[in-house]
Formats: sequence, C-alpha cells, structure tokens
Amino acid sequence: MSRTRRLRLGAFMRPVAIHTGAWRFPGADPNANFSFARLKGFARRLEAAKFDAFFMADHLAVLNMPMDALKRSHTVTSFEPFTLLSALAAVTERIGLVATASTTFDAPFHVARRFASLDHISGGRAGWNIVTTANPDAALNFGQDGQMDHAARYVRAREFFDVVTGLWDSFADDAFPRDVDSGIFFDPAKMHVLDHRGPSLQVRGPLNIARPVQGWPVVVQAGSSEPGRQLAAETAEVVFSAEGSLDAAKRFYADVKGRMRALGRDPEHCKILPAAFVVVGDTVEEARAKRARLDALVHYDSGIGSLNGMLGTDVSGYDPDGPLPDIPDTEASKSGRARMVAMARDEGLTIRQLAARAGSYAGLAFVGTPATVADGMEEWLDAEGCDGFNVMFSDLPQGLDDVVDRVVPELQRRGLFRLDYEGPTLRDNLGLPRPANRFFP
Amino acid sequence: MSRTRRLRLGAFMRPVAIHTGAWRFPGADPNANFSFARLKGFARRLEAAKFDAFFMADHLAVLNMPMDALKRSHTVTSFEPFTLLSALAAVTERIGLVATASTTFDAPFHVARRFASLDHISGGRAGWNIVTTANPDAALNFGQDGQMDHAARYVRAREFFDVVTGLWDSFADDAFPRDVDSGIFFDPAKMHVLDHRGPSLQVRGPLNIARPVQGWPVVVQAGSSEPGRQLAAETAEVVFSAEGSLDAAKRFYADVKGRMRALGRDPEHCKILPAAFVVVGDTVEEARAKRARLDALVHYDSGIGSLNGMLGTDVSGYDPDGPLPDIPDTEASKSGRARMVAMARDEGLTIRQLAARAGSYAGLAFVGTPATVADGMEEWLDAEGCDGFNVMFSDLPQGLDDVVDRVVPELQRRGLFRLDYEGPTLRDNLGLPRPANRFFP
Repeated sequence: MSRTRRLRLGAFMRPVAIHTGAWRFPGADPNANFSFARLKGFARRLEAAKFDAFFMADHLAVLNMPMDALKRSHTVTSFEPFTLLSALAAVTERIGLVATASTTFDAPFHVARRFASLDHISGGRAGWNIVTTANPDAALNFGQDGQMDHAARYVRAREFFDVVTGLWDSFADDAFPRDVDSGIFFDPAKMHVLDHRGPSLQVRGPLNIARPVQGWPVVVQAGSSEPGRQLAAETAEVVFSAEGSLDAAKRFYADVKGRMRALGRDPEHCKILPAAFVVVGDTVEEARAKRARLDALVHYDSGIGSLNGMLGTDVSGYDPDGPLPDIPDTEASKSGRARMVAMARDEGLTIRQLAARAGSYAGLAFVGTPATVADGMEEWLDAEGCDGFNVMFSDLPQGLDDVVDRVVPELQRRGLFRLDYEGPTLRDNLGLPRPANRFFP
Repeated sequence: MSRTRRLRLGAFMRPVAIHTGAWRFPGADPNANFSFARLKGFARRLEAAKFDAFFMADHLAVLNMPMDALKRSHTVTSFEPFTLLSALAAVTERIGLVATASTTFDAPFHVARRFASLDHISGGRAGWNIVTTANPDAALNFGQDGQMDHAARYVRAREFFDVVTGLWDSFADDAFPRDVDSGIFFDPAKMHVLDHRGPSLQVRGPLNIARPVQGWPVVVQAGSSEPGRQLAAETAEVVFSAEGSLDAAKRFYADVKGRMRALGRDPEHCKILPAAFVVVGDTVEEARAKRARLDALVHYDSGIGSLNGMLGTDVSGYDPDGPLPDIPDTEASKSGRARMVAMARDEGLTIRQLAARAGSYAGLAFVGTPATVADGMEEWLDAEGCDGFNVMFSDLPQGLDDVVDRVVPELQRRGLFRLDYEGPTLRDNLGLPRPANRFFP
C-alpha cells in the first residue's frame, strides 16, 4: 500500500507518563521518570520502532499545584532536559532529541550554544521546543516578582528566536579549513558578528561553536493561543498541539497552515503533531478498563490540583458537585483554560468530574486495540487534522511496549509509518529543508 | 611502597590541548577539540588510567584576541561543557566530570538543576568549577554594556554559591518514598523552600530535582586573586591553580590551606591541583625537542594575542624587541597578568619572547621522560606544593597516550597514584566528605 502522507511520531517523555496515576499502576516502575537506565532503555526501544523524536517538556519550578496534589506527582524530581538528551545522544543513533528551552528565563547565547552542541554531538538530531513558560512560579526562581504578561512574553519570544537563529548562522558551513600547513584554523571572512540590539535583547556574538549539522536544529512550538499560533506559523517546523477533538484539530491545522501560506512559507515545512494519550488492550473493552483502572489511581487532591493548574485559578473553594464558575483571564496558559472551560460547558461536567479528567489527562486519547488505535490515527491524518502525533504513554514500561510492539507494526502494515529512518538527521526524517545561512547564503 | 599522600589527576580537556600549535603537530588530529568520537575515546582512555576527572574550562565568547591570532586558534568551535559532559556520562562509568559554569552570566536555578541532573545521570560524578568569567567580551553576549568589576563579581559569586548549594538541599535524601499503596510520591515535610532574598539574587526554590547523589557535586575553584583565594578557602573542594614555580606553589598551597584552618575547615577537604603541561620523550632531550617543535608552530600573531589576553591590555603597539611597559590594572583576570609581569621582570624577557611563551603555554611544564616527569610530580607533592595536577596534554592523541601509557604506570609503580578507583563517586575518589543537608541535618 503506497501513501503520499505518512505519520510522524514523537514520544512525549517528560514526564514519561502524563497520567498522574501511571507511576502507581500495577507492573509500572514508580521511578521510571527519574531513572537514567530506564530512560536509556525507552529511548532505544523508541529508536528501534523508528520514532521521529524523544520529546522533553519542561518546567522551571515544581508544578504550581496545592501540596496535597503535588505530593502525589512523580514529576517533582525530573532531569533537566538538556542534560538528559545530551546523555541519550551518546547512546542512540537516529532518534531525534527535542528539548524545551524557555525564551523568558534563559539567555539566547546559552540556548543557541547548547542546541548547537547537542546537534553536533548527536550528528544532527536536535530540536528546540520554544516555550515562553506559563508556570507563574518560575518567575520567582529567576529573581522576578511576578510573571511577564502573555503578550509581552510572545514579543520577547519572537525576538529571542531571531537572535538564536542569527547566532546559529555565525559561521558559514565551510568556515573551518583547519589548514595544518598555513596554520589557519578558520576563515574570518566566514564569521558574522550578529551585533543584535533589539527592544528586549542585546547580543553581540558570534557564537563560539560551528554552525549546527542541521543548519538550525528543528524549531518546535507548542502554544495554541493567538500569538502562539502566529509564532508557530512564522517560525515552527513542528507544532505539538493539544486539540482534543478532530473538528478542533482540523480547524487548528487549517489555521496554522493557512497562516504559513499567507506568510509565503510552504505548509509542508511545518508538521503538526497533536498530543495523543494511547491505551492499548486486546479488546476495546479491555483498553477502556485499563484506562478506568489508571483513572481510579488519581486522588481527588491531584485532580483538583491539575484542574487549578490548567485553569490558572483555584476553584477548590467551590462546591465540587456544582458547575464551574466563570474563570478570570490570567497570565497562565490560555489553551489549557480554554479546553477545560469548553469541556465543562460541552459535557456539562461538575468540578469533581472535571478534576478527575484533568488529573488523568483531559486531551485526545486513543483507547483500544492496536487496530482501532491505528484507525483513529489514520482518520486524523487523512482528515488533515494532523501530520502525526506526539504519543503519551499510559504506564511505563508496559504502555510504551504496547505502542512499540503492537501499534507501530500495525501502522507500518498499513503504510502509515516508516519501516526505516529516511536519513541521519531529524530534518531528513521529518522531511524538512536545511535552512540557508542568512549571512552566507 | 606505601604512601599516605597520593596524587590526584585531572585532565584539562577544553580545549583538549592548551598549546596553540598542538592542532598542527605531526600526527595530531586537527579536529580533536571538536570531535565527539575523539573526546569519547579520550574520556575512556583517561578512565582506564584511573584519572580523577575530565575537566572542561569554558568561555562565553570567542577568545578576546586579535583576528590574526584568533583565526589560528582551534578553540573557536568548542562544545558547551554541560552538553559534552552529559554525553560522556552515558559512555563512562567512573571518571569525574567537572564543568565550568559562570556565576556572572547564568542563573543559580539553572546551574543547580543542571549539575544535580548530571550528578544523578552519572551516578555521582559531577563537579562544578565556579568561575566569575574574566573575558570582557562575554558581557556583550549577555545584554550588558561592559563587565562587572572584579570585586563585585566575587561578591556575587559567593552569594551564587550559597543559593546553588541551598537549592541542592531542597529535599532530604529520603524525601521520596514513592509509596504505590498510599499514592504518596514524596514527603512534603522533607522539602525546603529556600526563599533566598539577597543583594544580588532572589530565588524562591525548591529545585525540581532530588538532592544530588553526592549531596553536592564537588565544588571546584580556579581563581588565584585575593578574593579568588578567599572564595576557594570558604567553598572549594578542588582548586585548579596555575603556579609556575614550586616556591610559588608552596606559598599558594600554604596560604589556601591556612585560610581553611582559620575558617574551621579541614585542609584535607580541599585538593589543590596546579595545571601542568606534560611533554614526554624517550630522553629529556627528545622531550625538549618535541616542545621546541610545538612552540615553532605558534605564529607570532597568536603569541601576541595570547599575551594581550593574559595582560588584559593590548601591547602590540610597542616595540616587540623592547621590554614590557607598565600594565594598568584592568577588570580582566588578575592572575594571568601577574604571572606574565613577573616572568618579564624575573627573566628579562622582551615582548616578543613573552609572546612566544604566552602562545605556547607559560605555566608549569614537566618536559622529560616518564621517570623525570614522575620525579617532578613527586617533588611537588612531597614539598606540599600540591595534592596532584590538572594535566594539559601536548598533542592529541599522542600526548595523551604518552601520559596514560607511560607516565601513569610510572606513578603507580612508585605508589604515587591509584591502581583502581576508590569508589563510584568523584567524592569517593578525591577523599572528600559528603556534605550534610543544611535543612535536614
């Protein structure tokens, strides 16, 4: 079976399981999220299954939830993404390595340099997930009294992107002759001093590392707000979206690709990968029962904490069995709030029901047999709801094994997923062009 | 032969060869400094030889030297230390991994988190080389018009150290029961919120990662100025010093250990390791001839650039064959300037002679046979000029092979160096105690 469009699959791995009850699931390793040996094994399994990328979300503070919920979360101790992905680069060969780095709480020189280093060490497998950092507690860890407002964060993010990509272009690809006879290590005419002086950032350059193997590491974006979509259309090569329904996903897909066309970008040059929580069973009923067992492991205190986090507002003072009150607009992530408000409205859920959903993952889920999971993924791909998925595993290692050993072969049988990597770099596998150097075209 | 004091050996690996001519040496790999495959091989060789640590110096800009010198330097493209050491952590088992991080141009939350991550991933092998960053060009890459003055940098460095170590102590060692039955992942009573509000830094905490395997990664310091020595006496567990003569080294050693005693610290709890450039030959004459061949590969333009960098002043406008003029006090590294000024005075060197020295490494060098190199190291150890050395290799791979295959066995034969690692952590091997948690003693 020949298909022109195939799925791209990322693995959402920080935390290794998004589901709050996953670490307690029978057979799961309670420490899977913080065991390098486990994570190395997972990365190698995912690579053997030809996954496009191992993706690390990030937080610059412990999650902002009440202690009664936080104490039940396996996210409290997690590896810093860069450290982990650099280590994994040394023990993998082909899988992409996507790290989150914040444009609000880091410096563009550091970010450009680390991603360039990871790209060189991994032979061209690095990706940068650009985030503006929604957790308001992060500001308090970086000497700020409160969080920069949402719009200002996105203005800075865009300038930050320009600086980082400009620093990556500090050297022409052939800037380093390393001529032993003449003693000339690099050609100064092939070095560009950026000398950026913008409203938020002043960075001289050049970077002290050669241009990345991929030209630029793959640029990833996840925000779904209005400025988030625009930033994605302008800059992103992968979008990790979070649409819960196919209709919403089709609208998001058409919107981002349309914005790209309007900007003169080829819509094929950005792959939209919704997050998808996958639970596999021998029958659909067995898979649903597994999800119910997982959900039953989520304590109410965890659910209400997750709900508060997504809403950006503490609703624990309201009647749990009553409706969701009007939620004020805050500087927290707009997309999470919008999704929960819509879910409460559309399904008529109480705060208690919403809390259980929030605590056990409220987004897109494929719960079924390998065939029905593949059916769902195929439907989304064919309907132009996505270019693939960022898979969230239900429990580790079993939930990952189920996807790798059962779902992936079914996708491959249908011609929906690669049998082998297309090339050595993440760009090769995602079908993305290598950016020209803006200073040495 | 039984000895109570043995050498500790670090390997200075960024750049892989300090000598400006090393990348051009016959048989050397011109790209050794920027080849992950090479660096992985070097780390494994050093580990097989039982070296204590692989040490990465760092610069947050290309070296501040004239372009005519810079274009001849193999340092222009180098890996960011954290990325490289994290990758090496995955392919080594025992060798310590010491990364430089700047207290002037980074955030304590980031620094604490990355070193904690590296310590967990490596099983307790991380070390933090605290630097205040002397290169004035670095400020321009981080949104600052000019460099903070030397004294202010050290005041901030001390506060930065307090914050980082406080963040490492965010959780008691037994804070994570991961109790599947009760659903309690961690015990909130064993989490401390630092809430630091100091003159330079405000950081709330807690860190979002468990306390490091070593309690704290090993704290390393390299400055030799008055505030540098005091910071070392207060905080350091390893000092990378740069004394060129045994007399100077003995004074430095006695000074730092005396300051430690005055502060109530056990002087055994800080290991002083001078940088030592090692060139090995079958005879002393052959080793000297090798050094002369290396020096002959240093272009005058590189020498004058290195000299200017060390002085913090451009002296290229003066007569190369005349004496060094009076050098003003600048905010650049004080120790480099003092060494060059003393060398000019003591040996009556011209600017041209000084430039050749500066370009080919002006510090302590052991140039001889394995036996005479071991003699020199033994003399320094027995005279209390040091507790070991941070070895700089003359050329790669040969100069490293010479040390590993010829000098180390000679040191082992004399009982001056370990035959096997003492334990799994860098602290075990250096004989350093695991720090108590200040909040959960």
